Amino acid sequence: MQDYQSILNEIYSQLKETENKGKVADYIPELAKMDKESLGIHLRTGPDESFAVGDYATKFSIQSISKVFSLAKAFQLVGNDLWKRVGVEPSGNTFNYLSLLEWETGIPRNPFINAGAIVVADILLSNLKNPREDFIDFVRDLAHDETIDYNETVAESERETGFNNYAAANILKSFGNLENDVEDVLQFYFHQCSIMMSCEQLTNAFFVFCNGGRCMEDKKHLSRYKVKRINAIMLTCGFYDEAGEFAFEVGLPGKSGVGGGIVALLPNHFTIAVWSPTLNVKGNSYFGMKALKQFTDKTDLSIF
Amino acid sequence: MQDYQSILNEIYSQLKETENKGKVADYIPELAKMDKESLGIHLRTGPDESFAVGDYATKFSIQSISKVFSLAKAFQLVGNDLWKRVGVEPSGNTFNYLSLLEWETGIPRNPFINAGAIVVADILLSNLKNPREDFIDFVRDLAHDETIDYNETVAESERETGFNNYAAANILKSFGNLENDVEDVLQFYFHQCSIMMSCEQLTNAFFVFCNGGRCMEDKKHLSRYKVKRINAIMLTCGFYDEAGEFAFEVGLPGKSGVGGGIVALLPNHFTIAVWSPTLNVKGNSYFGMKALKQFTDKTDLSIF
Amino acid sequence: MQDYQSILNEIYSQLKETENKGKVADYIPELAKMDKESLGIHLRTGPDESFAVGDYATKFSIQSISKVFSLAKAFQLVGNDLWKRVGVEPSGNTFNYLSLLEWETGIPRNPFINAGAIVVADILLSNLKNPREDFIDFVRDLAHDETIDYNETVAESERETGFNNYAAANILKSFGNLENDVEDVLQFYFHQCSIMMSCEQLTNAFFVFCNGGRCMEDKKHLSRYKVKRINAIMLTCGFYDEAGEFAFEVGLPGKSGVGGGIVALLPNHFTIAVWSPTLNVKGNSYFGMKALKQFTDKTDLSIF
Amino acid sequence: MQDYQSILNEIYSQLKETENKGKVADYIPELAKMDKESLGIHLRTGPDESFAVGDYATKFSIQSISKVFSLAKAFQLVGNDLWKRVGVEPSGNTFNYLSLLEWETGIPRNPFINAGAIVVADILLSNLKNPREDFIDFVRDLAHDETIDYNETVAESERETGFNNYAAANILKSFGNLENDVEDVLQFYFHQCSIMMSCEQLTNAFFVFCNGGRCMEDKKHLSRYKVKRINAIMLTCGFYDEAGEFAFEVGLPGKSGVGGGIVALLPNHFTIAVWSPTLNVKGNSYFGMKALKQFTDKTDLSIF
Repeated sequence: MQDYQSILNEIYSQLKETENKGKVADYIPELAKMDKESLGIHLRTGPDESFAVGDYATKFSIQSISKVFSLAKAFQLVGNDLWKRVGVEPSGNTFNYLSLLEWETGIPRNPFINAGAIVVADILLSNLKNPREDFIDFVRDLAHDETIDYNETVAESERETGFNNYAAANILKSFGNLENDVEDVLQFYFHQCSIMMSCEQLTNAFFVFCNGGRCMEDKKHLSRYKVKRINAIMLTCGFYDEAGEFAFEVGLPGKSGVGGGIVALLPNHFTIAVWSPTLNVKGNSYFGMKALKQFTDKTDLSIF
Repeated sequence: MQDYQSILNEIYSQLKETENKGKVADYIPELAKMDKESLGIHLRTGPDESFAVGDYATKFSIQSISKVFSLAKAFQLVGNDLWKRVGVEPSGNTFNYLSLLEWETGIPRNPFINAGAIVVADILLSNLKNPREDFIDFVRDLAHDETIDYNETVAESERETGFNNYAAANILKSFGNLENDVEDVLQFYFHQCSIMMSCEQLTNAFFVFCNGGRCMEDKKHLSRYKVKRINAIMLTCGFYDEAGEFAFEVGLPGKSGVGGGIVALLPNHFTIAVWSPTLNVKGNSYFGMKALKQFTDKTDLSIF
Repeated sequence: MQDYQSILNEIYSQLKETENKGKVADYIPELAKMDKESLGIHLRTGPDESFAVGDYATKFSIQSISKVFSLAKAFQLVGNDLWKRVGVEPSGNTFNYLSLLEWETGIPRNPFINAGAIVVADILLSNLKNPREDFIDFVRDLAHDETIDYNETVAESERETGFNNYAAANILKSFGNLENDVEDVLQFYFHQCSIMMSCEQLTNAFFVFCNGGRCMEDKKHLSRYKVKRINAIMLTCGFYDEAGEFAFEVGLPGKSGVGGGIVALLPNHFTIAVWSPTLNVKGNSYFGMKALKQFTDKTDLSIF
Repeated sequence: MQDYQSILNEIYSQLKETENKGKVADYIPELAKMDKESLGIHLRTGPDESFAVGDYATKFSIQSISKVFSLAKAFQLVGNDLWKRVGVEPSGNTFNYLSLLEWETGIPRNPFINAGAIVVADILLSNLKNPREDFIDFVRDLAHDETIDYNETVAESERETGFNNYAAANILKSFGNLENDVEDVLQFYFHQCSIMMSCEQLTNAFFVFCNGGRCMEDKKHLSRYKVKRINAIMLTCGFYDEAGEFAFEVGLPGKSGVGGGIVALLPNHFTIAVWSPTLNVKGNSYFGMKALKQFTDKTDLSIF
């Protein structure tokens, strides 16, 4: 058996001595205010077993990590009908949110590029009674934590600078792939991105994807069929155009956000979340990528 | 414990009663001659344990499956220097062999698109003493089978119709990403594609990727580090623009060829090969995809 | 000397007997209501000499033809500073409004694709005191006709279905290439497109581009330098991805609109406008293209 | 009447005092050897009237200017059937020889991008009895000069470094848009590019495009119909992705080559050729562009 606490401590110390070449995302003013020095890791190896180091309990803006929650909820609600409106292929795009495919068909390549997540938000908007309340309740329920909430300042900050997302939503609307108003869909989408969670809350919530659809309290939220597929999409599409690199170096399904969080998991073994706000050039946490690479190297644990 | 033989039999019977909507690849005349009705599956669950059904012992043209062997050999020879000349990101391209990235940089996105495999062939050409002999010896060694060989008729057929590959190789040459002559590299590449193997020979040879780098006779060919990464590339890039779909529906690292073969594996558990010569619109075996989807559904075994 | 009236009559009769394979633009509901049978031609060969046939006096929605007026006004106001924010190269794009170039730089390729005209609208908004009033006054002044006006119903119809333009404007805004609010710029842009003019009013207004910058009443509106350049852009960019074809078959600078109007000119010789509301697959008037091709064939007059 | 000789002298003196920021094309070794200081201009205003300055009588490699001759000959031979295999639209591409269109259809956008000229070469190869002899005879005939010839050293130099052209030709072949062998077509194409001519020989030969299809000795080579269309293609496609800029600043149909030559014409008025071997970033002669811009500014002569 592995001494996980020592491994986490080791990674933490090493990173603290490493030059941080990443940069905080500054296109969203609220994110630019984060403390660059923050670093936390939380590892959950079972409902009652976890390990942690550093700022694992500090809440940060989960940003695109929320796309996994919205995908899970929409998949739960509409099943495979979801795939009529969004694909499951990696995008391979480096420079923008809309590939040629979207321009030609209005079908985003996958649910983790912004355009895809906007379609998922539209589906939730059409299928939830009180979208904002119901969605945050779903996340709270997965994490067993009622303190999780939206951050209105971040949501507003996203709206004010989200021209690319307005562009994407309008393209989708022009193809008839949004049922609701562009403004309504984006307001909901920006709120999803603004959710504040800590590393610990993330490993708790993601336990459902590691545990065949059952949360820490053993309640069934998703079928094995759906969990397998959500994990597959995390692996192939979870890190923008660095998805191949993450699969190659880390070898775990996972999802990153520009708030500096990364959460990953080994089915039936563990969930792990890292937070460090500075990003590499691909938009993924600079130290987060290093931490997870070291963790899988040291433990020799990966899906491959 | 699962009754693998019954599961294979069941899949085989079901497919035999299913309408075959696939089409044999006809751009290579030699491939067009294959018997459309052929169907074989071979499963290896350990060095001494295997299960099979149908035409599992018939040799066919492995085509792009050979790209895994050439990648493995080149990675073995030059290590991570390989990644200076080829990337590890999925291509997301549906319509051609060269993405914008190649046009702009001369660095193919990954070693499993043709342009990438041509770079790998160039590396082998520069690093093997007798490239054709040494390469086939490597494959024979992995499979423990001296009968494996090139098919000169298929190789010649590929050369005569391989204008796209000539185009790709010339682009790479123009960027200085081929050390050897275009004609020499392509002759070697076409020979790799022409290798004839059966499903059984494939599961034998791929056992090395399932077994942490050790072949069936426990000889170490590759490090765990390298095997993990080769498997990751199979998962993210092994099925052209259907890689996401295969990860989503099947959830195993694998590689397909236009000869109708698909081979896949679950690390530490099994290798499986299916052969049926008719292809779906994405160029992957129509029945092969169905067989593997059913196999992972019925056994509930996947990396996710 | 040519008998222009006979030539126009001949073209008109011939077209009236030709099967009309074009289709009325239906993405803007107001445009779909136009009478498909309408056909008018107006030719102006000097301030006091003109020829006409058919519905040359009926007003229609000039749509993208307005982009020539907005370019002329912006060029007049800011001079060559204009070209810091928009290019002069043909787009070569068939399928959408934003090419890769725009995605990468935020600089539209030319002022006649929608994204380019939206930048021009932004410039006018920043440089005109009362943008809507001042702009329509400029057009009235060129045409010597106070009856020319916006069509509020068409403008509103454009706004409600203009998701692509909202997308383009948001991309431009994200690159900092719009100074004003997206909504304000687009409201102004939609109004420009909604202007109603007849063939006769168009040849009157475009006389300034045929006459070295002087309008029919000999008032100097633009320098020779600017007129030459506006004409060049009409030639290379005036017909979307059919610009090459129009130069090839007709050989005149010109501009089309999805309302079915086309206006063209031979410097120092004539301006000509045709209107027929049904469009070919490239979005240019089906009969308009034929009429102008016949006119230059019969008269042997073109810039080439 | 204009004093053309003084204008040419003035342009020449001014350029001689201007810093030359261009660079000689070095990807073809033979071209890299040219004297950077060379500068010549030749203007022909009628069969018996011409003006010149500097190195107007020195022969240089005409490179892509030959594409106009091959287009003219192929158009003469097969008429409008030509347009089944190549388009007439500007390419708008900055970074390579093959746009997405070629990848998808095998039909080059126009006859002046390399892929298009390769198709034209294939047509000539199929329709001329002795292609190389007949083609050079055609050029000699237009220029009334038997000394014009291929440069075998340049042709061989092109072949050795022409990987991009091999790529393009193989793509065309894969689509069935080449009738002859790739090697044969390219050998002929490289020879065309290698033709050596002086500015004077170019204005003589291009007189046919300025004079409605009749050469200096009044022999009819091409119909008015064809000349009009060749001129249109020069205007819209003659300067790679600087075609819009050339139309905008100069306003004449013309064609450039990486040997540093540019030839342009005003129908019914003049042909003009400039040669200076250093190129701007778009691959057109740095001083050549400046000279022609000044010439049209000073004379106020252009098609617009």
